Amino acid sequence: MLESTVAAIRPLDEAAMAAARELQGRLTKPAGSLGALEPLSVRLAGLAGACPPPLPDQAAVAIFAGDHGVHAQGVTPWPQEVTAQMIGNFLAGGAVVNAFARQAGASVTVVDVGVATPLSVTPPDPAARAADPAGPSALTVDVVATPADPDGPRLVAANVRAGTRDMTVTAALTRDEARAAVETGIRVADELVDGGAGILLTGDMGIGNTTPAAALVAVFAGADAAAATGRGTGVDDETYARKVAVVRAALARHTPDPADPLGVLASVGGLEHAALAGLILGAAARRVPVLLDGVIAVSAALAAAAFAPDAVGAMVAGHRSAEPGATAALRHLGLDPLIDLGLRLGEGTGALLALPVVTGAVRVLHEVATFDAAGVAEK
Amino acid sequence: MLESTVAAIRPLDEAAMAAARELQGRLTKPAGSLGALEPLSVRLAGLAGACPPPLPDQAAVAIFAGDHGVHAQGVTPWPQEVTAQMIGNFLAGGAVVNAFARQAGASVTVVDVGVATPLSVTPPDPAARAADPAGPSALTVDVVATPADPDGPRLVAANVRAGTRDMTVTAALTRDEARAAVETGIRVADELVDGGAGILLTGDMGIGNTTPAAALVAVFAGADAAAATGRGTGVDDETYARKVAVVRAALARHTPDPADPLGVLASVGGLEHAALAGLILGAAARRVPVLLDGVIAVSAALAAAAFAPDAVGAMVAGHRSAEPGATAALRHLGLDPLIDLGLRLGEGTGALLALPVVTGAVRVLHEVATFDAAGVAEK
Repeated sequence: MLESTVAAIRPLDEAAMAAARELQGRLTKPAGSLGALEPLSVRLAGLAGACPPPLPDQAAVAIFAGDHGVHAQGVTPWPQEVTAQMIGNFLAGGAVVNAFARQAGASVTVVDVGVATPLSVTPPDPAARAADPAGPSALTVDVVATPADPDGPRLVAANVRAGTRDMTVTAALTRDEARAAVETGIRVADELVDGGAGILLTGDMGIGNTTPAAALVAVFAGADAAAATGRGTGVDDETYARKVAVVRAALARHTPDPADPLGVLASVGGLEHAALAGLILGAAARRVPVLLDGVIAVSAALAAAAFAPDAVGAMVAGHRSAEPGATAALRHLGLDPLIDLGLRLGEGTGALLALPVVTGAVRVLHEVATFDAAGVAEK
Repeated sequence: MLESTVAAIRPLDEAAMAAARELQGRLTKPAGSLGALEPLSVRLAGLAGACPPPLPDQAAVAIFAGDHGVHAQGVTPWPQEVTAQMIGNFLAGGAVVNAFARQAGASVTVVDVGVATPLSVTPPDPAARAADPAGPSALTVDVVATPADPDGPRLVAANVRAGTRDMTVTAALTRDEARAAVETGIRVADELVDGGAGILLTGDMGIGNTTPAAALVAVFAGADAAAATGRGTGVDDETYARKVAVVRAALARHTPDPADPLGVLASVGGLEHAALAGLILGAAARRVPVLLDGVIAVSAALAAAAFAPDAVGAMVAGHRSAEPGATAALRHLGLDPLIDLGLRLGEGTGALLALPVVTGAVRVLHEVATFDAAGVAEK
């Protein structure tokens, strides 16, 4: 399935791009005055093979969640259980990604691709929570779809294993496990597109997941461990130094080959990173744009581009994460982010903030009058 | 009216800002992980005097339109009639600002504060236009509200004079004319806020209006004419050199005093710039945020800040225009823009693209669960 998906990914359609460039020149605005939105609209026409491309008005965020054996090395001050607790928060609609998704009219799908803590209790009831803010303090989940609201966040159970192994000790995943996670991402992309999604947004949750992201960026973008590693959710100097040393040790142990993306994901990746690479490949194969969130997303995008260089044509960089590895990855992919506001939250929040820019860029091709039609003189 | 509005503008409410800072620290996300959105939410709480501040879900774009005597100096390749023609396009819903406003759910109000071409014909019929794209080529307007759609764009007739005078020859406006334009902006702000708007967005239309904007930036931000002047809608090298010389000549003729903002607007400003300064003052007096578009908006914001320094508290910089004067003005105001995508269209387009970021920043304070309530452990 991975191989057939990669084989289906093709270059952008030059004729549709030429038509979009020509149309941009006839619309009632000075040529080029929409800045980065104009080439973006051209690229999306090339992806769709049509001018104008379809308005991406049905958006779907897929949040892949996983845990990390490298957590044992003390790379983050957050307990591993927070990954599962945040899934409860996503399903209850209480996280930032939920607030932004409601605003953007995007659906939220949470995929347990490798959470370590068993998801075993019913999701929190938002009404009960509002009534008693100090209420139950251990909220985990045991559902495949949230029962109360059919349009609300849903959970997909696709756990490949209960977190990766510690990459400083052994490979994080077997090749088969990495492949299973990638193919989960492809399947999620297919299901969302089959359900009508016109654009996919990457989301992630996994305490410790900026550490494997840094390793992936170091391998694929050829960056030094220190340049690829950031402070994640906000680690102190001592933890940061340990995190860089952990990334360096993992790279030294495995010497991953960037020409073998499955091997890289297996040795130093994460289950959510692998699944995101699959989501991106799936979107590219279906000719649907995929709006990338932060450093986890762009590290996965590097893996996707290593599988299929033409997959970059489907990628839109939502924002520039505050993590330095994100900038290194975006540069390697040749992508300029749409938003640059110092976000470092993940979940898909940066991608959701950028969604109206993408929709707006396409909307211009659909709705703006030409000089001729509007009776406006040209210079 | 100008004086009473300026007197009503007060500093941000420190207690509401402290409450917003404290709430941000309890929400289920790492502290600071929403980057620039966190201080923005704090500032909007201070403006509203409440935490959380109201969600700015009813947004209103006000497009002030005017013409410029300095057009005679050859500062732009576009004919002056395009100002009126574009008003027709706005009222027909065919411009980029209309597409972005529909997407954002914002109302559009066009204010003729100083268009030179008489607005005399009925607005174009979008259905007829679609049927015959080569249809009527001279579309002007004669309406105070668009008849077909009560929620559609409306025109406010408030023409102070048929364009400014040529500022290289004489003052662009008398002090009374400048005051009339500023007070028109204040009235529009009051009407929009009375109508329920929770946030005002600045828009502008005026062939040649980046030339007075450059002069305003030079005066208020203390920038050299060359540093304040850009290529507007895209002028060639020769026109650009003439434009810089025109700005320099106007400044030399009038030596405007930045401590006398009405005098500055009268000598080297524009009617839409003056009205925008009024809109900003009106918003600040009503404690409603005003989302600034590009260089015309920020040059007017400098005038507003000269009238009332505390008005800056109500300003949110929507985007960084490609015009260099915009960056000089934003620096002087101490504002960081939310979007930086090389737009240079005006109309309010950059402000509209930034609107979801502002709404999202406030929405977080309304909708995101706290660690306690969600049962998520902290680090």
